[in-house]
Amino acid sequence: MGIAHILKDPARFAAGGKLWIEGEKDRFLGPGRVELLEQIQKTGSINKAAKEMNMSYKKAWEMIASINQQSLVPLVVTHTGGKEGGGAELTPEAHELIAYFKDMHLRFRDFLVEETQRITDMI
Amino acid sequence: MGIAHILKDPARFAAGGKLWIEGEKDRFLGPGRVELLEQIQKTGSINKAAKEMNMSYKKAWEMIASINQQSLVPLVVTHTGGKEGGGAELTPEAHELIAYFKDMHLRFRDFLVEETQRITDMI
Repeated sequence: MGIAHILKDPARFAAGGKLWIEGEKDRFLGPGRVELLEQIQKTGSINKAAKEMNMSYKKAWEMIASINQQSLVPLVVTHTGGKEGGGAELTPEAHELIAYFKDMHLRFRDFLVEETQRITDMI
Repeated sequence: MGIAHILKDPARFAAGGKLWIEGEKDRFLGPGRVELLEQIQKTGSINKAAKEMNMSYKKAWEMIASINQQSLVPLVVTHTGGKEGGGAELTPEAHELIAYFKDMHLRFRDFLVEETQRITDMI
């Protein structure tokens, strides 16, 4: 049995959630880490990416170190020197992970749609 | 394509997540609110329930007010006076909601198991 008979205006309720990938000891990849990777891709810099996210450089570095340590190959590589004073870029494997994470979220969105329909008694 | 080829020791990774029910303007029910309801059931008191959860009485009351406001019937009823100095108890509808929330989480657990199998390349 559903719960629509308990709710005021059941059509306004929805299932919500958050999804991540966890390693044995530490978070591996969640929405924040994916956003950080995407900002690094966009800005070419860990420092700029951290600023875009109102995150300290230290925190951003710790997140990247955690992701890299749990992967067989680094996902973010940094290079120093040069006219621009160094920078950071994603490896092909980082792009694969981001794509996988988004696919996983499409499946999660389907799950949430189905649960929302249950809550609102449409299935 | 999966991501097992990128991960160190892929069998140690898992999909993790959090699930809740949201109303139009406010969270309706999540793991914390369900735990609060269960503690009220167990202790017969909002104050004791809040203490069990290291939560302020004010915070507990706000959560209950939010749940009650979004429901057609109150889910927690309080009674004052008497030898015990009043108390709180759950209505049958609160028990229905708790049961529904747990069923929803069983389905979510299935989803996470399937996603974990994908990550570790078992499907």
